[in-house]
Amino acid sequence: MTTVTKTGDSTVERHDVVRPGMCGHNSLLLGQIGDWTWEAVSRVCDTDVLRAEDATGRPTYLSFYYYRVRGGRLFQPRTPGFGDHLQTSSRVFDFGSESVLTLHRIRRFTRPPSSPPPPFDVDEFYAGTDLDCLYVENFNRWIGRGGQAGNADLVTASPKGFHHRHLPALPDRYSPRRCFHRARTTGTFRADPAELVDVDETTVTYRVDPTRDLNGVGLLYFAAYFSIVDWALLRWWRSRGRSDDAFMRRVVTDQQLCYLGNADAGCEITIRLRVRRHPAETAEIVDLTLHEGDRPLAVCTLHLSDEEMP
Amino acid sequence: MTTVTKTGDSTVERHDVVRPGMCGHNSLLLGQIGDWTWEAVSRVCDTDVLRAEDATGRPTYLSFYYYRVRGGRLFQPRTPGFGDHLQTSSRVFDFGSESVLTLHRIRRFTRPPSSPPPPFDVDEFYAGTDLDCLYVENFNRWIGRGGQAGNADLVTASPKGFHHRHLPALPDRYSPRRCFHRARTTGTFRADPAELVDVDETTVTYRVDPTRDLNGVGLLYFAAYFSIVDWALLRWWRSRGRSDDAFMRRVVTDQQLCYLGNADAGCEITIRLRVRRHPAETAEIVDLTLHEGDRPLAVCTLHLSDEEMP
Repeated sequence: MTTVTKTGDSTVERHDVVRPGMCGHNSLLLGQIGDWTWEAVSRVCDTDVLRAEDATGRPTYLSFYYYRVRGGRLFQPRTPGFGDHLQTSSRVFDFGSESVLTLHRIRRFTRPPSSPPPPFDVDEFYAGTDLDCLYVENFNRWIGRGGQAGNADLVTASPKGFHHRHLPALPDRYSPRRCFHRARTTGTFRADPAELVDVDETTVTYRVDPTRDLNGVGLLYFAAYFSIVDWALLRWWRSRGRSDDAFMRRVVTDQQLCYLGNADAGCEITIRLRVRRHPAETAEIVDLTLHEGDRPLAVCTLHLSDEEMP
Repeated sequence: MTTVTKTGDSTVERHDVVRPGMCGHNSLLLGQIGDWTWEAVSRVCDTDVLRAEDATGRPTYLSFYYYRVRGGRLFQPRTPGFGDHLQTSSRVFDFGSESVLTLHRIRRFTRPPSSPPPPFDVDEFYAGTDLDCLYVENFNRWIGRGGQAGNADLVTASPKGFHHRHLPALPDRYSPRRCFHRARTTGTFRADPAELVDVDETTVTYRVDPTRDLNGVGLLYFAAYFSIVDWALLRWWRSRGRSDDAFMRRVVTDQQLCYLGNADAGCEITIRLRVRRHPAETAEIVDLTLHEGDRPLAVCTLHLSDEEMP
């Protein structure tokens, strides 16, 4: 039911039929798309990402450092239903030997698509104007475990045989480096804090759940960060007297998440949530910062549209 | 990376390479295996389970009614790591037009398996003696939404064109019907309650989480029941002074779950957990019953070995 085709030196096209294990009111689809990033990089960089090792034979992981999702009222990560068809065009860009950028443009159909995907254009991708598309950007870095036990000590670790020089360069104007530098230093992805009006803020504590949050190598799973962000968002949502039903129909037009640290099962994560508005936008702008003690784990900004899903 | 082959009228063989989205300390693998059940049934019953409809054109879902997993110290649902190879032999059995039974024998390899799977033998499956195998039994029933809003009103609804008469019959001695009749009426899958010694019991309340628990059609996801059971188990585990680390190394040799009802986001589920021992067994026997008010949602029995994972 899934087909994956390498269509060029840096390009992969895939077709998936939506199963229960990859959809719903959860982070399953975002987890699947992360797997697609690993598969695209494996295909175009001649590296088995699932089994990558550094020069000394130790495992290296293509960890998620930055994950952005943009969608509209018609296509949220929670939208696809059983049997829908997803047509994904993926493009991989060179960011040196220690990191890599993958873009996925995902189109949704309720029947098998009758035509091949339209050409992929980087400017169109970043404009993100097609309401029937989900636009996903993944910036990944190669890491390995450092000398200390636990999940806090992770170090840069490139795999042997990772081919990247043939990949195209991303036009500098789209480089995500500026974005996540800003997020890391200011606690928001927004570049215009002076124009934003405070609406609300709150702080909640989440304990890393050993029944849900850790991946197959014992690290806090990248998709679990989205679940933890949603967990905090829901607490704030309910505190405003809004319903769970309305929460499930929320439209997040843009969500950016920068991963700054990992954490162990049982750890307490302090989540600061701040809500602001821009006078010219019809959305609540929600910034979340995740810390374990003083150690930053993530920064996330999401745009919560005033509209709901149909 | 995945291949699925129909090898006979009622048999499917598959090969999967483990990705992050299908492993870890969570219910992802159990969710994936459920998808494999849907795919096996689709293949051998000439029905697109993802898009099934009844005679009037309304969606019908191949809902999970009974899910059993058996494994040993070497192979728990949490064991597979990135890049492992899973070789799965699936067999589908006739249970009439309204339900169907699927057995999966799953073998794990750290490298691509060098030989085809051994023959599948039903007696061997139920004996379950191979420590390198995970044995999964899924009994599914066709359901649809009834006339009332919400997830509590689900009714039997067979799809048109569901071919099942050619499927083999399961030897009566293995019929799961007795098992789940017992579970439904006595609150445990154990047939020998008089021989068990009480160890502990507790009651906890779980609220259905709109950020994690609902599937792509808005129903409480079958794999989420396992997460909810684990959530309750962990609360009890911690109350005994045991560590999260030890929890993650727990060995559940046998887990049986019978689905009796569904629930909406935000619902409060009362979970009664009872722990007993049998004098001749080296395991804690944990029974959990899930209710929303008086309405039963699930009964689960799991065997928690005194051993830990290596």
